[in-house]
Amino acid sequence: MAKPQIEPRILKGFRDLLPNEAAQRIELFEMIRGVFNSACYLPIDTPALEYTEILLGKGSDETDKQLFRFQDQGGRDIALRFDLTVPLARYVSQHRNDLTLPFKRYHIAPVWRAEKPQKGRYREFYQCDFDIIGTKNISSDIDTLITIGNIFEQIGLKYNIRINHRVILNSVIKFYAPDANETAILRIIDKLDKLGIELVKKELIALGSIEEGNVINLLKTITDLKNEKDLNIVFGILDDLLKNIENTSDVLKDCKKLFSTLNNASLKNGSYTYDISIARGLDYYTGIVFETQLVDFPDLGSVCSGGRYDNLALLFSSQELPGVGGSVGIDRLLVALENTQFNFAKEKPTKILITVFSDDLIGEYFKLANTLRANNFSTEIYSGNGKLGNQLKYANKGDFDYAIIIGENEAETNSVIIKDLKTASEDNQHQITQDNIISFFKAK
Amino acid sequence: MAKPQIEPRILKGFRDLLPNEAAQRIELFEMIRGVFNSACYLPIDTPALEYTEILLGKGSDETDKQLFRFQDQGGRDIALRFDLTVPLARYVSQHRNDLTLPFKRYHIAPVWRAEKPQKGRYREFYQCDFDIIGTKNISSDIDTLITIGNIFEQIGLKYNIRINHRVILNSVIKFYAPDANETAILRIIDKLDKLGIELVKKELIALGSIEEGNVINLLKTITDLKNEKDLNIVFGILDDLLKNIENTSDVLKDCKKLFSTLNNASLKNGSYTYDISIARGLDYYTGIVFETQLVDFPDLGSVCSGGRYDNLALLFSSQELPGVGGSVGIDRLLVALENTQFNFAKEKPTKILITVFSDDLIGEYFKLANTLRANNFSTEIYSGNGKLGNQLKYANKGDFDYAIIIGENEAETNSVIIKDLKTASEDNQHQITQDNIISFFKAK
Repeated sequence: MAKPQIEPRILKGFRDLLPNEAAQRIELFEMIRGVFNSACYLPIDTPALEYTEILLGKGSDETDKQLFRFQDQGGRDIALRFDLTVPLARYVSQHRNDLTLPFKRYHIAPVWRAEKPQKGRYREFYQCDFDIIGTKNISSDIDTLITIGNIFEQIGLKYNIRINHRVILNSVIKFYAPDANETAILRIIDKLDKLGIELVKKELIALGSIEEGNVINLLKTITDLKNEKDLNIVFGILDDLLKNIENTSDVLKDCKKLFSTLNNASLKNGSYTYDISIARGLDYYTGIVFETQLVDFPDLGSVCSGGRYDNLALLFSSQELPGVGGSVGIDRLLVALENTQFNFAKEKPTKILITVFSDDLIGEYFKLANTLRANNFSTEIYSGNGKLGNQLKYANKGDFDYAIIIGENEAETNSVIIKDLKTASEDNQHQITQDNIISFFKAK
Repeated sequence: MAKPQIEPRILKGFRDLLPNEAAQRIELFEMIRGVFNSACYLPIDTPALEYTEILLGKGSDETDKQLFRFQDQGGRDIALRFDLTVPLARYVSQHRNDLTLPFKRYHIAPVWRAEKPQKGRYREFYQCDFDIIGTKNISSDIDTLITIGNIFEQIGLKYNIRINHRVILNSVIKFYAPDANETAILRIIDKLDKLGIELVKKELIALGSIEEGNVINLLKTITDLKNEKDLNIVFGILDDLLKNIENTSDVLKDCKKLFSTLNNASLKNGSYTYDISIARGLDYYTGIVFETQLVDFPDLGSVCSGGRYDNLALLFSSQELPGVGGSVGIDRLLVALENTQFNFAKEKPTKILITVFSDDLIGEYFKLANTLRANNFSTEIYSGNGKLGNQLKYANKGDFDYAIIIGENEAETNSVIIKDLKTASEDNQHQITQDNIISFFKAK
């Protein structure tokens, strides 16, 4: 293989995880999987690649443009999935007969978007989705929000779920701009957090489909509702404002019920708000929509977003398969957790390095490793060629708790020297017989 | 979104996992991750997409042809990884300064190959790799084989690791065909299991670079060595045969040491063999190579393969970064496990369905679910619109252990009815007070 050297590099917007980063992500996945299991969400998997027609036109113009799309060897037009919700709609339509509805599923997997790379945003990132398919019952909306609460309670960071309903926002828009394209207006309102009110006002006026006076009134209503903490007042204003807008009063009634259930049943007070400005960019939402902010990390943006999408599966099936769900932003969450005490694993296993004194003793080392591993002590036999000093350096760098030294003297007397690497004192070295080694570590 | 309907379908050679399949795979991953942790392998992750030049020419002509390769929006020539070993070589070369050598890493992730789809073979499949980088020490070879043993001991299926060494096989080929292209011959010998001796003989003769008499002798030597169970006799024959072939005697010495260590230290007798016919198709192997068969599922082929590849990283770096490792074939293993008692999880959580009697009680249901979930009982509130009978059918289909019924009477008296769904007897229904519900389930 005498080929020229190739520069080892990764694609722009992609990244490798170093061992501690990968370990943290696995820990977070396991914790979240525990929450999903506790609420009886079932795991599924779907392929990374789909026919392009499955994915196209489901998210937004933006997600269409960001597809990693190509022809395979068979000339098929295929693409990497940009989210896990569209594949879910395809999945439930295709496997309808193998699934019991309502179907609660979760899916933790990477997705790909050819976005402009920015700090903390990657072209490959994990989504961690949970959804309930096959019901419009309000209890599935509530379950979704409570599941988010349970995840963030476990993580131990202060959070705020900002909840809205597409129909309410659309109705408010309709009130001020009865003839305008709601989606275009909604997309601009979605930028309120990012751009601020003045720029949003400009964009809305520039749109041309809603007159300036109404832009000002619309934004004032949104701002007033956002600032009002008393939900009774908020829904009172909405009831009054939207009483003549079709199909809105039932939605308002449902929303009041949703909040009263969250309030008296489950979610900690202060961990959720009604926020009329939450729009969510994706086209497919039809009911509740939500974003979740970490109170101490407002700049991270939403770490768990989602909503109800009752018509998505209709593209694949004549049968209605309404759905609701959320998606945890694992990568942003890991950024926040970098700055905190991060330890979800109940118990870190003890790590032991067996140092290598003589190649002739290698059989002994492996025998001992077997015994230690069988007793749940993570054990490595040093496999490099360094001398004892370097082996101990290796152990310290690798965050090992103990080093075991077996030289010829020890082998002859069936003993071992155990060096406690986490203790600075001089009294950190013990010689014990091999028979006592498990009880020694168990006592620690 | 009034668009025409799209047929919900997946690409040929790809597949969805239904919930029980996905759950089994997660369980298997967790079990294997436990073995890796116990031997101090560290997790990493790399992107699914790489520059094509990173992947090309590393595996074989076949893996080159099977790449899912395309141009991204920026005109870059990129491809989906076909294995996890080549990205690892790129990774260690690139992050050399952030890693402590020897570097023990594992990586569980999907890879993509545009193979001809066959039963049990998919174009997207998981690999579950573990490797030790940065040492040629024989203890890293041994550790690799013992890790395989530990995985299959945990799985509880009878296995046989068939171990060979590239240098020994190359030397045997050299002995009979000093001037031939060893790689071409080795690739044909690699098909012995699949094609049988007669077809392999034909192919070797057709190759033209080795005369017929020597083809017969070569295959006879291989067959004789394969049939001989006594390792002393095997290595005696090899010592004798290869005594004049350069660089072979040290390798034979190392192999003897490897087998004696496996024998007296760790691996169950009968769970490994020396098999001169194991070649492994990939170009990059330079030392030991191995395949693992399940004794009761010989048709599945190898469920864990790998070997030593000392020069792979040299393509990316002027520094030598030798490596050795294996890859567990998760999908094949799951096929085998379908037919066996499959339960690695220590304890399956109890699954409870709270049936919905009245929408007015929804707050009560969620409160109760909270309490149950906090006590590690997996709990779902029925979120469909079915009547009680249908709700109980749903519970049975979903493998729930208990259904809880709270009607208005029960709500008034602060009690619940618990229906034991796993008991056929008539005595499977209990009414208890809500205060006693946790102790009731804990007692079960």
